Amino acid sequence: MSKVFSTSLRCRLPVLLFLFQGALLMIFALFVTYDEHTDATNQLARTDLAANQLYAIFSFFQDVQLMLLVGLGLLLAFMKGYGVSAVAYNFLLANFSTQWALVIQGFVHHCHHGKVHLGLYNILTAEFAAVTVLISAGAILGRTSSIQLLLMSLCEIPLYVACEWLVVSYFQAVDVGGTITLHVFACYFGLGTSIALYRPGLQLGHPKETPSYISDLLSLVGTMFLWVFWPSFVAVLAQPGDAQHRAVLHTWITLSASALTSFATSSLLEKSGKLNMCHLQNATLAGGVAIGAVADMVISPSGALALGIISSLACILGFKYMTPFLATHVRLQDQCGIHNLHGLPGIIGAVGGIVAILLVPDEAYGLNLFQVFPPRGLPPGNATMEATSAGENLGRSATQQALYQAAGLGVSILVSLVGGYFTGWVLKLPFLAQPPDRLCFSDALYFKVQEPTATLSVDQASGDLQLPLKDNA
Amino acid sequence: MSKVFSTSLRCRLPVLLFLFQGALLMIFALFVTYDEHTDATNQLARTDLAANQLYAIFSFFQDVQLMLLVGLGLLLAFMKGYGVSAVAYNFLLANFSTQWALVIQGFVHHCHHGKVHLGLYNILTAEFAAVTVLISAGAILGRTSSIQLLLMSLCEIPLYVACEWLVVSYFQAVDVGGTITLHVFACYFGLGTSIALYRPGLQLGHPKETPSYISDLLSLVGTMFLWVFWPSFVAVLAQPGDAQHRAVLHTWITLSASALTSFATSSLLEKSGKLNMCHLQNATLAGGVAIGAVADMVISPSGALALGIISSLACILGFKYMTPFLATHVRLQDQCGIHNLHGLPGIIGAVGGIVAILLVPDEAYGLNLFQVFPPRGLPPGNATMEATSAGENLGRSATQQALYQAAGLGVSILVSLVGGYFTGWVLKLPFLAQPPDRLCFSDALYFKVQEPTATLSVDQASGDLQLPLKDNA
Amino acid sequence: MSKVFSTSLRCRLPVLLFLFQGALLMIFALFVTYDEHTDATNQLARTDLAANQLYAIFSFFQDVQLMLLVGLGLLLAFMKGYGVSAVAYNFLLANFSTQWALVIQGFVHHCHHGKVHLGLYNILTAEFAAVTVLISAGAILGRTSSIQLLLMSLCEIPLYVACEWLVVSYFQAVDVGGTITLHVFACYFGLGTSIALYRPGLQLGHPKETPSYISDLLSLVGTMFLWVFWPSFVAVLAQPGDAQHRAVLHTWITLSASALTSFATSSLLEKSGKLNMCHLQNATLAGGVAIGAVADMVISPSGALALGIISSLACILGFKYMTPFLATHVRLQDQCGIHNLHGLPGIIGAVGGIVAILLVPDEAYGLNLFQVFPPRGLPPGNATMEATSAGENLGRSATQQALYQAAGLGVSILVSLVGGYFTGWVLKLPFLAQPPDRLCFSDALYFKVQEPTATLSVDQASGDLQLPLKDNA
Repeated sequence: MSKVFSTSLRCRLPVLLFLFQGALLMIFALFVTYDEHTDATNQLARTDLAANQLYAIFSFFQDVQLMLLVGLGLLLAFMKGYGVSAVAYNFLLANFSTQWALVIQGFVHHCHHGKVHLGLYNILTAEFAAVTVLISAGAILGRTSSIQLLLMSLCEIPLYVACEWLVVSYFQAVDVGGTITLHVFACYFGLGTSIALYRPGLQLGHPKETPSYISDLLSLVGTMFLWVFWPSFVAVLAQPGDAQHRAVLHTWITLSASALTSFATSSLLEKSGKLNMCHLQNATLAGGVAIGAVADMVISPSGALALGIISSLACILGFKYMTPFLATHVRLQDQCGIHNLHGLPGIIGAVGGIVAILLVPDEAYGLNLFQVFPPRGLPPGNATMEATSAGENLGRSATQQALYQAAGLGVSILVSLVGGYFTGWVLKLPFLAQPPDRLCFSDALYFKVQEPTATLSVDQASGDLQLPLKDNA
Repeated sequence: MSKVFSTSLRCRLPVLLFLFQGALLMIFALFVTYDEHTDATNQLARTDLAANQLYAIFSFFQDVQLMLLVGLGLLLAFMKGYGVSAVAYNFLLANFSTQWALVIQGFVHHCHHGKVHLGLYNILTAEFAAVTVLISAGAILGRTSSIQLLLMSLCEIPLYVACEWLVVSYFQAVDVGGTITLHVFACYFGLGTSIALYRPGLQLGHPKETPSYISDLLSLVGTMFLWVFWPSFVAVLAQPGDAQHRAVLHTWITLSASALTSFATSSLLEKSGKLNMCHLQNATLAGGVAIGAVADMVISPSGALALGIISSLACILGFKYMTPFLATHVRLQDQCGIHNLHGLPGIIGAVGGIVAILLVPDEAYGLNLFQVFPPRGLPPGNATMEATSAGENLGRSATQQALYQAAGLGVSILVSLVGGYFTGWVLKLPFLAQPPDRLCFSDALYFKVQEPTATLSVDQASGDLQLPLKDNA
Repeated sequence: MSKVFSTSLRCRLPVLLFLFQGALLMIFALFVTYDEHTDATNQLARTDLAANQLYAIFSFFQDVQLMLLVGLGLLLAFMKGYGVSAVAYNFLLANFSTQWALVIQGFVHHCHHGKVHLGLYNILTAEFAAVTVLISAGAILGRTSSIQLLLMSLCEIPLYVACEWLVVSYFQAVDVGGTITLHVFACYFGLGTSIALYRPGLQLGHPKETPSYISDLLSLVGTMFLWVFWPSFVAVLAQPGDAQHRAVLHTWITLSASALTSFATSSLLEKSGKLNMCHLQNATLAGGVAIGAVADMVISPSGALALGIISSLACILGFKYMTPFLATHVRLQDQCGIHNLHGLPGIIGAVGGIVAILLVPDEAYGLNLFQVFPPRGLPPGNATMEATSAGENLGRSATQQALYQAAGLGVSILVSLVGGYFTGWVLKLPFLAQPPDRLCFSDALYFKVQEPTATLSVDQASGDLQLPLKDNA
């Protein structure tokens, strides 16, 4: 059985990846050039550093990369025998999705005179797109092959770019940290996919679906990385100056409130008052998801604190009551609980944004309310476009803007849920090497690794000792 | 037994945390506003970036956060069955203490016209305050409940703020990296608490008090994080320019000298020349503790090198001879050896500061000797206050300044030791869920986790194999 | 047996380290002063921040340090019982080598009026020198004592500084990311040493030479750290502005292509299509090694993509076919496969540099082709020297420059191979505590650690259970 799957993977993963990389090479060669700010004849280039994207966003960019590859990778590595897959597939999928988003966003947003202009800013926004795929994958972690994940990325990225354009550019909804366009979209896309991929055989759980001591610890360390650098993620696209300062402040405050609330709530809800690792690993980050929609608004520090408390409460209640309910009644398996970490806090954040727009007077802002940074995917520092964008927004009343925000949220949920569901059906195509129930959640299916812990072999029925290292090497 | 403790925890941890978070929400709503540098009517806000705290300290701030939550968390996770508690409690305590310090420092240092002005700088200095609590907790790690730790934070933070004001603002002692006000204070506060919490039952050690292979490795990785980012911690509050450059240089040199000296000394002192993990995890950082008092002075690179050698020597000798002596004769249990890493090097650094002030002529400085950055806790960039501060200092002779430095050290030790001792008595109150001796150093008491390693169950008396994963899940 | 080696280590490691640290203290005291940019009488010092090295390179510097100590440390920790040694020796060797390079480079490049001027830039370039030693050590990891490694560093650093001077300053070869002078040099130096240290007894492998599940996972996490921060490593010494932006862009693109290609190729080459951890840990970084020679040139994004694909292909083919061939036929044991990660991609990158120089017209550059940043080891921001350097280069035709590049590559390989071989013979001196075959790849020989996994003891012949924790503590 295992042999059949592996063999099919041997052909199909390389074919897909080589085709993709070859196509990208061709596209790059034909259409992609640099996005540079110095003139070939300009000898004063060195004074132009400020216009260069590198010096505005490089350190934020590194922070975001560390979050994705180390933070998220470790966080996902919570199952005792699926840690290697979690880190490695996260890495594979991040690169595949970012490259794919570079192409799509390049042609949609950065194409002038038939050439895509590539700069660090493009890679940053492409990584934001990749984050949606990584989050969505959390719903089906351990039940899918790498080919299925890559195919999901191929479907999800274009839909994300389209939906983001609709929400941010067309509706002009405010969403500096990607709460609506990124977290909510990613969550419901993943859930849609998961519904289509429902497996009755895993309804009652799987023996490998549990953490080990060390995988729980490493996953918590992953949370620490995400927690520390989350302010960079939210603030990188905020307007430099006080708005960006507010975004960082709010994100820190809300995350800190989430952390304390998670400890309190987890202890309260668990039998015997013991803290639940899953709650600590996830709910401590819930505020960071919610704050994205309002991070640069003048919501006051207490507003950020309240948002963090509410989000983490919702997240833990979700883990405790909603995930089991969905699994039983809606036939929805959500492996990492992305609905609790990205769905619920995302909706709370989006609603918070509407409330803030209705309640906070324009005069509270140094500049004006809606003069946000150019939407993700568009080049920064484009003064003309900003002025227009601000002007158009100013034409709206607070109520009108609130309605556009609500429309953005609705569209994001709807588009992603439907898109994800159809993607899920595509992933069920027979030649995609989906692992059988029995072999789910196991690194050994696709990776040459040792058995994770000695006990797995030592504790076999008969009681005779087997040396796992030799069996497997 | 375990049930009783857990049940009490179930009620008390949530109550304490929710009360605290609710109080903070109220205080934030009533008193806290933004510390912003742009005028609401100022259309040129974007040119004002330089005045914004974000661009001066954000990357330092992230470094410090990574040190605290990942570096220190992993370093503390050295015990085989207490790694999850170490990382999680470190995270809980860091957030609780920072929020608490935000309030205290806010009202003491950042309150104008009845409003606390909140900026990134506040969070940074509040995290410095939180570091004291995290260090102090090292002395009693594994022997206390989370409620006890939070209560310790409630007592320690106000005392820290008061003592810092006395040493830095009143005595005008130079201490840019917090050697005296932070490391020495934290160490003796923790030791004071530990004396009050002495347990005869743990006098001869505890079977769970040992590391496992992997916990030792992860702890060493934690040291790497602390080592790499230590220069940010020391230099963030130094005067921008050459003084800050010197602080970074000195810190790197002293840490590097500590690293080599630790390998040499550990190998020399241990039977059979094997390197002791505990020495490598701790003494390689000793120079970083000591350098704080003199980091921005012109002590010359060789001075920094010498300080690193002496500090790590003292640290290892402390682990080898002083910790056992204290445990036996002074009834002082120091779980992580904070006296060796923070106490001894801290005193060495403070004495080094006195020597530097007496020996280095004023002319060695580009600016003048005592024109340090505003004391931690006060807002930066306040030109008037700096000028005054420099002027007052200039009125002192080197000998006078040296006496004030010595007074600062003495006060810091005395206040913290006494304060810690009384705090320890408070922590002995009966309803604080202190774990009984038998259940110390065990994650399983307060966390829903798997048993850390198979051997724990496999190696039970009878020899029959038990599957720990099933027993515990 | 073990006792003899340990005892000898007990005397010799401390003696070597204390002598070294004492000598350095003396040199620092006599010859080293600060490299500062403010005048002692200049009251306007604060406006001079731009000239201060700190603000140009500090965040890059931290990134590089994190790569070395955490990233490389974890990557090397892939063997099941040698993880502590990997991280600790990497740390020891990095510090020893950096200090040693500080002295050598200081006297060669930074000495004016009899004083070595020390700044953050010196430490950065000294760490680049240290990287060569750390890479070279990968070839002989687990088969050498710490004293042997330190002795190798003593030999390798001066040779590196000489060779770099020859290639970068004398030949004026372009090599902004150190492909030729650093990676290729380090690789062949290590291989030369390894040939001299060949052990027939390890020809057929060693039972401890395998990874465990957790060591494989941690090693992959190390790769993530290296992958994320690699752009900082390549770009830190590039000319600020568009050249530095290009360096970051190219590095990211090439690394991303390497990542995808590695997954595809590994799956294709392995029996049953399973992914090989060793390939993922190493080949995903191959593009980063290759790009160094061309990172700031206008090679176009597609050029960077192609380089990443080719490098990782070469790296995996090297692991699959070349390493076994070398071990069998050339008596060359390459523990970490540095020839696959640093040698082959390094040569590919150097050849790529020659091709780029021949093909890319000068007009493609905003400034001029060869006006690179001052060679590593020289102080930055020295306008006069740059102008000269550019002028000299401009005198060359593209073909001439290509020949100098080729000469640089040839010299680097030759010098390092011969130097490494002789160093290897020095390391065979009898009093250097080289571990016997039987005790290779074992932390327990030089460190006081627990046995890595329970199975090691549980699975002994007789079947009776031994408690490793007690045996060893």
